[in-house]
Amino acid sequence: MTTGTLYGIGTGPGDPELVTRKAWRITSEAGVIAYPAPEGGESFARSIMAEAIRPDAEEIIMAVPMVAGRAPAQAIYDNGAEQIAEHLTAGRDVVVLCEGDPLFYGSFMYILARLRDDFTTRIIPGVTSMTAAAASHNHALVARNDILTVLPGTLDDTVLEQRLAGCDAAVIMKIGRHLPRLKALLRRLGLAGRAFYTSHASLAHEQAVPLVDAPDEAPYFSIIIIYKGDDPWI
Amino acid sequence: MTTGTLYGIGTGPGDPELVTRKAWRITSEAGVIAYPAPEGGESFARSIMAEAIRPDAEEIIMAVPMVAGRAPAQAIYDNGAEQIAEHLTAGRDVVVLCEGDPLFYGSFMYILARLRDDFTTRIIPGVTSMTAAAASHNHALVARNDILTVLPGTLDDTVLEQRLAGCDAAVIMKIGRHLPRLKALLRRLGLAGRAFYTSHASLAHEQAVPLVDAPDEAPYFSIIIIYKGDDPWI
Repeated sequence: MTTGTLYGIGTGPGDPELVTRKAWRITSEAGVIAYPAPEGGESFARSIMAEAIRPDAEEIIMAVPMVAGRAPAQAIYDNGAEQIAEHLTAGRDVVVLCEGDPLFYGSFMYILARLRDDFTTRIIPGVTSMTAAAASHNHALVARNDILTVLPGTLDDTVLEQRLAGCDAAVIMKIGRHLPRLKALLRRLGLAGRAFYTSHASLAHEQAVPLVDAPDEAPYFSIIIIYKGDDPWI
Repeated sequence: MTTGTLYGIGTGPGDPELVTRKAWRITSEAGVIAYPAPEGGESFARSIMAEAIRPDAEEIIMAVPMVAGRAPAQAIYDNGAEQIAEHLTAGRDVVVLCEGDPLFYGSFMYILARLRDDFTTRIIPGVTSMTAAAASHNHALVARNDILTVLPGTLDDTVLEQRLAGCDAAVIMKIGRHLPRLKALLRRLGLAGRAFYTSHASLAHEQAVPLVDAPDEAPYFSIIIIYKGDDPWI
């Protein structure tokens, strides 16, 4: 019997219209859909794709506990991968939904790592929150020979300072509770005036402002873009 | 009279199905479409969107001469922006097509720079060739706290070596005629075994191979990904 194909689907930054035609089609054809969700909460990726999902699709929810340490989440992905593997073995395709792009800081890697050696996998890339945030500021992220560095906001100040020194533009991802510290760091480095903040990129409640006007509390999926070079486009 | 809106549309990496639903809809509704093309050649962005473009749409082709120096291309963008401005002033929306994402090393910045102060602009982000290339290798580009650096292959070896030292993953864009030099550099740095090459990401003739198996002649739109860290996903 032919086994099914595992699809890793990028759902883009949030606006359901920023899903690719391919991701939409494959999802709308799928009989089995899997996605992570915060334990007790709604899956952002599923909410983006809600209109594409068939009413009769079987849904595998990986309810990730919001606790410290890797082991609890990894146990959930173990269990999810087992359920997905059963469908694949029985010849059914499985679509795994992932915000943004599946391979750009995406949770899909946990499923991919567990199943890619045993099953055919196909990745459908998506629009990242990074370029959606750039769009919110109407300013080229990088141009010509610019160097771009992408930094998780979870890194400590020393590492961030080193890496911010060697690029023309920088994107800091996963801001959340780190925002006050990051604001202070960028002020200290003289970069606050070149930094821009976006939360909920591409959604109706998107907030896109200079960093100095950003709130003190930021959601996890918020982003800071720092344009270090001259305005690159003339 | 209300002026028109300038749309910067990301067409994604090449597969027409990797265009977002929003980019497809806005293009299919547009009466005026503009795009750059190599002088005497076909526009890649237009070829991606061919099925969406209305037969009666007016098309503004910015034929960019493939010569050294910035001035000849900038003159073409001056002229293109003037034509676009006439339509906008007359109240007609104009869609400008751009491969990948309009603000990620995109030519759209030349039009945006000339018109954003005078007209309403909206950017529709797209899938970049970077994440499409990552998808071709079925391997997470970045995960968790990884640092990503994006480097144009046009930079000289000294700069590339410095920047490759401080990241977990690197993407080298705009390879083209620089491929033999880049191969030699990565061999010298002991990174050749961790480097992967993609050309024509997402198209039927996509080539995705370890760098050591890459051809010596690469198209301009080819990419090298270097995974420096351990396999990040377990």
